[in-house]
Amino acid sequence: MAEIRRAVRGVLDGVPEGALVLVACSGGGDSLALAAGVGFVGARVGMRVGVVSVDHGLQEGSAERARDVVRVGKELGLDPAEVLTVSVGREGGPEAAARQARYAALGEAAVRLGASAVLLGHTLDDQAETVLMRLARGSGTRSLAGMPAVSGIYRRPLLKISRATTRAACEALGLVPWDDPHNEDPAYTRVRVRHEVLPVLERAIGPGVAEALARTASLCRDDADALDLWADEVYARARSLGEGLRAADLGDLPGAVRRRVILRAALDAGADRAALGAAHIEQVERLVTAWRGQRLVELPGGVGVVRRYGTLIFASTVS
Amino acid sequence: MAEIRRAVRGVLDGVPEGALVLVACSGGGDSLALAAGVGFVGARVGMRVGVVSVDHGLQEGSAERARDVVRVGKELGLDPAEVLTVSVGREGGPEAAARQARYAALGEAAVRLGASAVLLGHTLDDQAETVLMRLARGSGTRSLAGMPAVSGIYRRPLLKISRATTRAACEALGLVPWDDPHNEDPAYTRVRVRHEVLPVLERAIGPGVAEALARTASLCRDDADALDLWADEVYARARSLGEGLRAADLGDLPGAVRRRVILRAALDAGADRAALGAAHIEQVERLVTAWRGQRLVELPGGVGVVRRYGTLIFASTVS
Repeated sequence: MAEIRRAVRGVLDGVPEGALVLVACSGGGDSLALAAGVGFVGARVGMRVGVVSVDHGLQEGSAERARDVVRVGKELGLDPAEVLTVSVGREGGPEAAARQARYAALGEAAVRLGASAVLLGHTLDDQAETVLMRLARGSGTRSLAGMPAVSGIYRRPLLKISRATTRAACEALGLVPWDDPHNEDPAYTRVRVRHEVLPVLERAIGPGVAEALARTASLCRDDADALDLWADEVYARARSLGEGLRAADLGDLPGAVRRRVILRAALDAGADRAALGAAHIEQVERLVTAWRGQRLVELPGGVGVVRRYGTLIFASTVS
Repeated sequence: MAEIRRAVRGVLDGVPEGALVLVACSGGGDSLALAAGVGFVGARVGMRVGVVSVDHGLQEGSAERARDVVRVGKELGLDPAEVLTVSVGREGGPEAAARQARYAALGEAAVRLGASAVLLGHTLDDQAETVLMRLARGSGTRSLAGMPAVSGIYRRPLLKISRATTRAACEALGLVPWDDPHNEDPAYTRVRVRHEVLPVLERAIGPGVAEALARTASLCRDDADALDLWADEVYARARSLGEGLRAADLGDLPGAVRRRVILRAALDAGADRAALGAAHIEQVERLVTAWRGQRLVELPGGVGVVRRYGTLIFASTVS
């Protein structure tokens, strides 16, 4: 519990005095331990802390459970304590649709209640699972960076704390976590990664794999941030000089930065982020690194790129 | 086979005319397919190509097998064709000691025979295994970059080609690969990763995991190269301005670059690379990002770092 309280104290340090902080609590062990930690620390530092529990309406008894969570939250000293009832759509599959509805409700509640931060209970183990799932996509450093500790109003204070620690904290406090049956359903990739991949990886490579994956995420995040900064600077300078990107300037950059600059220009011209893949960016890159008079490169979202007089011009191809 | 020949042609393109290229061949399917590809392409482009097979002397019949490999190499048109007999020490464990002896012998043979490149048969699957093993160390982008396609005299033309393809090529050519019993011995981490982790990962996440891991390696390599370049430039500028690193300059850098610059200064001052961990570098970093009058930071290898008048001074602490 001390470990969790320390992490909570660290995250509350950054919140302005008098502000309200909400904990998003499903009733699972991680977010329940977080709610307890926030209740404890909040009372000691005189900070306003509340709890919200999202009822996705997808499982039998979900409304009742959300009410139970809110009741426990009140007992832990959290106020306001609210159930957020959402209706989950279908877009992007069940996991994505539930996530979308949940974050929309959390964001709305933060605004309505005047909260300056919403705390989420993701742990080191969640981060390790995320890294493994992302790794299998092969989409690079930013993707391997996993979940951020801070993103907009959201904070994840438990990213360096293991699930075993949150379980132990609940037990020590006599709190009974709710075990979401979805967390045991092998239809979900995350569940398979948790119950099948990580134990095998740990057996093959040795203990500490989850910690190593979480450390990898943190290092990759710093690396991706630095490269994004570099690309932002190069792109801002190029824009201030006029239309398009000069091929000679792009040619002088390391590939990792060149491709990030091209991505920025493509998105600015209206390319469709979701449909834009590494292969598209590489095709544009070849206008610089393997120039032999290629014609228009077409990108998803109706954007075309041509090289003219040594400059790459990004333009909409739809009228 | 066409895929392998294309990869070999690509790698031979970069070799100066009239130069000798050696294939390192164990007799396993990967390097055997590579030797066949090199023999085929070499004859067509009029290039001198040879083969060497290392006898580690660790298994019954290893000398005879190396001689067989060399004989097959000759039949594939490779000349010179030589057995390299090595004696494997014990330092760093059996895998590391064998690798050390092997690369020493390959390097020596390249010099003696006047070869300008030595080709290695590592495949996409080897790369995927390497990335998974490195991932579990949690040591960041450079580590996740896996094996390089080019490193000194060594070239790995098959890094984008699967083991299944090399096996199929051997079969198509009537070549019988040797199956190293070490490749089935679960005492080796790599074997456990290959036979236990990757199949489970593929089942949990979907097909194409090995390809995704290899793509991750390639993206991480480019990212690490770009960040190293940035750090090299910052470090060279700092050195040209005088002794030490100015804390204010380090403070302006993103963390990923700042820590790389600190690493360079530490190594230059004589710190022990193998013993130097992320925690040491972070302790030095806190002289910049969390300065509150700390004393000397000691690094392995007898190097001390102090902050004086806003400058980090790296100096030997041994006389």
